[in-house]
Amino acid sequence: MLLVRYGHSLTRFGRLSAQRHGGSSAVASCAARLWSSNSSNQDQRWHHHTHGNSWKYGLAGLIAGTGAVLAGGLHYHKAERADTSRVRTIEKTSDLPIFSQEEVSSHRCLEDGVWVTYKGGVYDITEFVSIHPGGDKILLAAGGDLEPFWALYAVHKQEHVLEMLSEYKVGELSAQDQKKQQSVQSSDPYSSDPTRHPVLRVNSLKPFNAEPPPELLADNYITPSAIFFKRNHLPVPQVDPASYQLHVEGLTGGVLTLSLEELKTKFPKHTITATLQCAGNRRSEMNKIKQVKGLNWGIAAISNATWGGARLRDVLLAAGYGPDVAQWARHVQFEGLDKDVTGTTYGASIPLNKAISEEGDVLLAYEMNGKDLPADHGYPVRVVVPGTVGARNVKWLGKIRVSGEESSSHWQQNDYKGFSPATDWDTVDFKSAPAIQELPIQSAITTPADGTAVCRSSEEVTVKGYAWSGGGREVVRVDVSLDGGKTWQVATLKSSEDTDTPEPSPLPGRAWAWKLWEVTAPLPPDSQELEIVCKAVDNSYNMQPDTVGPIWNLRGVLSNAWHRVKVKIAEDVIEE
Amino acid sequence: MLLVRYGHSLTRFGRLSAQRHGGSSAVASCAARLWSSNSSNQDQRWHHHTHGNSWKYGLAGLIAGTGAVLAGGLHYHKAERADTSRVRTIEKTSDLPIFSQEEVSSHRCLEDGVWVTYKGGVYDITEFVSIHPGGDKILLAAGGDLEPFWALYAVHKQEHVLEMLSEYKVGELSAQDQKKQQSVQSSDPYSSDPTRHPVLRVNSLKPFNAEPPPELLADNYITPSAIFFKRNHLPVPQVDPASYQLHVEGLTGGVLTLSLEELKTKFPKHTITATLQCAGNRRSEMNKIKQVKGLNWGIAAISNATWGGARLRDVLLAAGYGPDVAQWARHVQFEGLDKDVTGTTYGASIPLNKAISEEGDVLLAYEMNGKDLPADHGYPVRVVVPGTVGARNVKWLGKIRVSGEESSSHWQQNDYKGFSPATDWDTVDFKSAPAIQELPIQSAITTPADGTAVCRSSEEVTVKGYAWSGGGREVVRVDVSLDGGKTWQVATLKSSEDTDTPEPSPLPGRAWAWKLWEVTAPLPPDSQELEIVCKAVDNSYNMQPDTVGPIWNLRGVLSNAWHRVKVKIAEDVIEE
Repeated sequence: MLLVRYGHSLTRFGRLSAQRHGGSSAVASCAARLWSSNSSNQDQRWHHHTHGNSWKYGLAGLIAGTGAVLAGGLHYHKAERADTSRVRTIEKTSDLPIFSQEEVSSHRCLEDGVWVTYKGGVYDITEFVSIHPGGDKILLAAGGDLEPFWALYAVHKQEHVLEMLSEYKVGELSAQDQKKQQSVQSSDPYSSDPTRHPVLRVNSLKPFNAEPPPELLADNYITPSAIFFKRNHLPVPQVDPASYQLHVEGLTGGVLTLSLEELKTKFPKHTITATLQCAGNRRSEMNKIKQVKGLNWGIAAISNATWGGARLRDVLLAAGYGPDVAQWARHVQFEGLDKDVTGTTYGASIPLNKAISEEGDVLLAYEMNGKDLPADHGYPVRVVVPGTVGARNVKWLGKIRVSGEESSSHWQQNDYKGFSPATDWDTVDFKSAPAIQELPIQSAITTPADGTAVCRSSEEVTVKGYAWSGGGREVVRVDVSLDGGKTWQVATLKSSEDTDTPEPSPLPGRAWAWKLWEVTAPLPPDSQELEIVCKAVDNSYNMQPDTVGPIWNLRGVLSNAWHRVKVKIAEDVIEE
Repeated sequence: MLLVRYGHSLTRFGRLSAQRHGGSSAVASCAARLWSSNSSNQDQRWHHHTHGNSWKYGLAGLIAGTGAVLAGGLHYHKAERADTSRVRTIEKTSDLPIFSQEEVSSHRCLEDGVWVTYKGGVYDITEFVSIHPGGDKILLAAGGDLEPFWALYAVHKQEHVLEMLSEYKVGELSAQDQKKQQSVQSSDPYSSDPTRHPVLRVNSLKPFNAEPPPELLADNYITPSAIFFKRNHLPVPQVDPASYQLHVEGLTGGVLTLSLEELKTKFPKHTITATLQCAGNRRSEMNKIKQVKGLNWGIAAISNATWGGARLRDVLLAAGYGPDVAQWARHVQFEGLDKDVTGTTYGASIPLNKAISEEGDVLLAYEMNGKDLPADHGYPVRVVVPGTVGARNVKWLGKIRVSGEESSSHWQQNDYKGFSPATDWDTVDFKSAPAIQELPIQSAITTPADGTAVCRSSEEVTVKGYAWSGGGREVVRVDVSLDGGKTWQVATLKSSEDTDTPEPSPLPGRAWAWKLWEVTAPLPPDSQELEIVCKAVDNSYNMQPDTVGPIWNLRGVLSNAWHRVKVKIAEDVIEE
């Protein structure tokens, strides 16, 4: 396992450090050993190769800004460390040579060597480039300082990453150039992120990822924007609505550029209520089976809102979409205005037929729950692709491109895909799986919470939750069990805020919003504990799988097994 | 249980027969007792009511022509009977009055009493009407003879049904009228059914329902028409292609009538390869959990063919479909030319958006695998609704009707729907569930067969099967386990006859054809038995549920849990 190897590398730190100042060839040797968890009898190049693959995808989440990616590594790490104080900062070693920034800057490619600086140290990371989890992106820092990158991807700021870096140290940056760097460097890229509601449960601060307490979720058919789950990949960009421009490319008429005002006034405003769900919702249940990579979401990385905006279809038609384009175009790509230090923006794409269909209901939304989009949800314009995984609902939308190809972004190509439980980071081939678009049937229990108790004297228990399916498939039934799935009862479904005036049934294939559900059942007299289970069915009669293990996947996405909570029946009255 | 009560009625036959000749009030009393399995202390009316509900749906399959509906009843029956020879025919009792056909014919409604004849006996079934499994349809036989109805629904011809009928006997038909009846009566309505391939495994002869041996299924990507599963609800109609007419109703331009020639020449011919699956495929696995009603299908009520015909969309547009119709129309209904003795045709409907969408690919097919449709598959024209349950792919198509409502047919309203495992025939409300349209993800193992053995000396095992999902969702992965689901491997998928020249990927949402799959794996050295399991994933990442029990439903439809077969590893060489 990759993350175990982190631990191994730490235990070897002392041994390896004795031989670490020998220039790049020694560094290469160190690096090879660093990734090898076995004896030197084994072929190091083979290790290099296979671990390289593991690394490339294993920590792709670093680039994706998923702050919890290394949580598992830290866990192993802590178990093994004896004295961490000495590695909290990288010590300067007086016998290393001093380099000027100019010298560092001359090492910007593999031929000349790849050097970087970090807090005054100079590092030759040439050998590390091929095994960098984030791939070639590391070359963008070549000849310069790591600090601005690591400010963006805060997960790098962990001890074992610093330890790995220390292996590559070749010198010190001159004092003069260090001063210059400090003056250039630079504010926290997340400093202008908005203030968030304190009730949110934060999975990652930078970038900001948080979910509401589950029990609040089923209290509101329309989730209030403040507690709608937040899933940012990068810092929230500051967008001036007056100068905002949306560019539509790839069509015969050239680039169409729209101001916010034009988007609002030149196209009819459509309103839909649609549930968005992160691909990683309920990932924590997969983590209990075996560690996966990604934010440790509970059951509340899903929320429901009313969105208002122009239809993407209308904008594409205005930009020149027609039968000629339909001949070759297959995808519509989106680029956000949120970007990393290299200028790379968040990006994703959806199939063209979803984008152009009248029944696809894809919006370029500028309103959420009747108000301007909040900053965390894409102000001033985001894509809302109802029925489709959250990751394609690109926020802070800057560019739309009609194309024959999917988005080339990391998040479309090497993330947000599902794999067999047999696939690990050494064997995964991201090209072999389709990008997640429509999500499968999902449901979860929001109350009671796991591990709580109900009073015997109350004689009954009320169970509440949500249910939703992707692709506009309507939830038609939720089955609830109090005995772990032996017997079932059918829950009451709620498809609007006001149950007395239910919404009309959605048109076929356009059921974009979740259903909340509820069941009240007598407490079984002979039980001390309930194992409450829910499973939903959509109108294609897709069902949730019974258990998590067989759908486990290395990235922890698509976690939609029956949701189970255990609740004790307290014989005495509980003080509330 | 309903079917147990059949058995009970038999054991009471002697006792009840003593009081059965007292006219309609006595018959009513007998009838009430007949349905009561408990003592006379209980409220008979209550029993009447609740069992009535159970009856109405419980044997709805009789009308649907599902020959195996009563299989469970027979099972119980046999266990209880001592001497069945005396009930094989209904004996004539000389002390009963003689009635003329004219007198019988005067009893045709509940007010006047409902009388029928059967093999020379006269029966007052007034009290039975409300509890007839097939509902009011029984009134169509009122005042006449049961024989032609029972010829159509052969499941009536079972001893316990005859016993029930005997309770209602009130007289004998005059010898003269018996002779008249015999001269009118009449050929077997199934006598003109086509000859079928002997390799088919017959689940019901009349109507004909049969599936191929599973091991043949995965041998051909395109299933040969002769072994394509057959699922008829009624006798195969004889249709003269020269006089055939297709009527399209419900549109502004009036009725459009097309000859076969016009259908073939006035509309472009489209060809699609699409898998059809019966809603009851794999029902036998549900029967192992708890008896369900319906034909006991194995895993082969699914097949794949290439269909050629006119697009339904094109025909609807030619018939006057336009934006005005789109305002109110929601469904497209189909009527077959296959009919029962009352003239009621087979019928079904699909949502309008599926019918009219360019991407829906709904065909009015006149070709199957490059030739005219075979008689069993709807000659001369059938609907092919790719991605949708077999039942909506109406054969021997006579009429198309655009409507605001679904088809009112039994098969749309009170059959082919899914329910919770908690729902039984006493509580089922067919209005509460949507008609099955798109089917969920499915897969099964075609070889090796359950209960067979593989030789240890062969060192490896090859597992083959099929996988398919409804709604045009493409199968993207099949996971196979040899150890009951503990560990998995990914199968190789095959999406054309010739693996060397694979078909191009289907467009999104238009993957209508199955994938065959195969995996060859070493035999685990320490096992004596393999529990081989498969599960498929579609591109909405829907998964199959782990186990059958929690998706069990009273009608035994939508059986798509992981497929499991047990195979022994034979240590000695097996003679082949």
